[in-house]
Amino acid sequence: MSSEPVVVSVPDRDYAERLGDLEGVEVVHWDMEAPHPRGPEIRLAVMPYMTRLRLADVVTGLDSLAAVQLQSAGYEQFAADVPPGVLLCNAAGVHDASTAELALTLTLASIREIPAFAAAQAKGRWEPLRLRHALADRRVLVLGYGNIGRAVASRFRPFEVTLTAVASRARPGDDLVDHVHGIDELPTLLPEHDVVVVIVPLTDAARGLVDADALARMPDGALLVNVARGPVIDTNALLAECRSGRLHAALDVTDPEPLPEDHPLWTTPGVLVTPHIGGATEAMRPRSLALIRRQAEALRDGRPLENVVVEGGAEGS
Amino acid sequence: MSSEPVVVSVPDRDYAERLGDLEGVEVVHWDMEAPHPRGPEIRLAVMPYMTRLRLADVVTGLDSLAAVQLQSAGYEQFAADVPPGVLLCNAAGVHDASTAELALTLTLASIREIPAFAAAQAKGRWEPLRLRHALADRRVLVLGYGNIGRAVASRFRPFEVTLTAVASRARPGDDLVDHVHGIDELPTLLPEHDVVVVIVPLTDAARGLVDADALARMPDGALLVNVARGPVIDTNALLAECRSGRLHAALDVTDPEPLPEDHPLWTTPGVLVTPHIGGATEAMRPRSLALIRRQAEALRDGRPLENVVVEGGAEGS
Repeated sequence: MSSEPVVVSVPDRDYAERLGDLEGVEVVHWDMEAPHPRGPEIRLAVMPYMTRLRLADVVTGLDSLAAVQLQSAGYEQFAADVPPGVLLCNAAGVHDASTAELALTLTLASIREIPAFAAAQAKGRWEPLRLRHALADRRVLVLGYGNIGRAVASRFRPFEVTLTAVASRARPGDDLVDHVHGIDELPTLLPEHDVVVVIVPLTDAARGLVDADALARMPDGALLVNVARGPVIDTNALLAECRSGRLHAALDVTDPEPLPEDHPLWTTPGVLVTPHIGGATEAMRPRSLALIRRQAEALRDGRPLENVVVEGGAEGS
Repeated sequence: MSSEPVVVSVPDRDYAERLGDLEGVEVVHWDMEAPHPRGPEIRLAVMPYMTRLRLADVVTGLDSLAAVQLQSAGYEQFAADVPPGVLLCNAAGVHDASTAELALTLTLASIREIPAFAAAQAKGRWEPLRLRHALADRRVLVLGYGNIGRAVASRFRPFEVTLTAVASRARPGDDLVDHVHGIDELPTLLPEHDVVVVIVPLTDAARGLVDADALARMPDGALLVNVARGPVIDTNALLAECRSGRLHAALDVTDPEPLPEDHPLWTTPGVLVTPHIGGATEAMRPRSLALIRRQAEALRDGRPLENVVVEGGAEGS
């Protein structure tokens, strides 16, 4: 441990204040819009959330830079600009609670008909009493069983549902599911599930994973929830299944995105669309702050950083 | 155990079919609209759900009647008409899953702005990205901690919230909360909570429980969720707090109910209204069926019935 404090820049005054207690770390506020006077000393630079900054502009003159910390899980737009010897870290985990929460919100709002009741409310109309749908007793399939998939499953657990998890490969279960099924079992599992929540990463294999065949295997009245990425689902095939009234969908992500004003997804019955709001909530702030704290401590103590997604100058970067 | 089967009437052919395997029990279908030929033999009569039938009309000629089973938790409209020697049983428990599920639906839909996104969807409008609210990290107070209150708390538990339970008297906690607070602590607890879910029974003490003073103690931006009964909340006081934008509300029950077309609750910003749909879902059917099965078995075996709310001919009935 060096006697010189590790200089960390954060893009937010509140973060700087809350990290002020870190021993052996000097936290400076830098929004990255103009060079910082302490730039040459900065070892860890935290990027603003939802930024349009280019990494190549940011790192100019940061002569001591060891790592750049993002506040998003996505890092593709920064990957090519990481200087040699610098690490790029993403914010995997920071948005899990918010995204998993939205998966439940979309599921419950769809099944319990909140959009229809909100429309009736706008007309001052008290809808007549009749037996409606519920989430309880439904068979829920979580497609993608990494950290967010588990966060989704844990939130579904107390709702008296049946839970099935599907990941790229079959493996033993955990405290939430007896068994994790492999993706090769998806075609035989789909007909047995009333709710399918998609939370796979957008790999080449995941693109178009939920295609016309997969949708056709879902039972009548089933609900498809997408909190992953739009291109995982074949939009035209989904439109056909929802237009006929056979399936319902609740989508936080779409293909294309943003959805143009005249896109048929907006007006297809049984489709609820939110504008990619999954992780963009206040819930990210304490979780991002905790990650920055751990990263600053690791750098200070000479331990490896978390969430390293690119090593600048390494093969392929 | 008598050699004669216990005759049970159910108002639904599907129920009759599903109970057909009960040994020592004969299940007959009776919708109660006209006298049933087996009427004089019926020992347990199950009322239709959401019925306008009067019990006095139904029980005429049921000479062997031991008990009437309701499919609702409310029983007040039937209490005065229970014949001497007959038990009236309500459906406590049958609607818990559905009602607790709606409490989460209303909370999540309000906080994650589903009504606003549904309205934007109707206009084909993709709302711009900004940091929004989430349920995670909120301090949730469950006001009323009986069976439904616990069902509500269990569903909130995985959402990374702080949970506080309030019941009529303080008592030790359970697997969901460390401690159950007494209602006398409510005034000091309210300022420390972001979400208040009301699920108290409508006793005299509960009428007007959430009055202007209680609402004033809730912090700015807090959300009040009512899945209990409308008169628990002072509607005018709530309207004032929501009109100013200080509080939000999500109400499945209102005072008056149904809400007339011109009632200001419909149009007050930050207020979401659903038309008393809490327990009226398909989730009730398997739960009601399970209760009827247990009651039929108890009657057959000479064991006490569950959920007895009125003993006909007893003092006070």
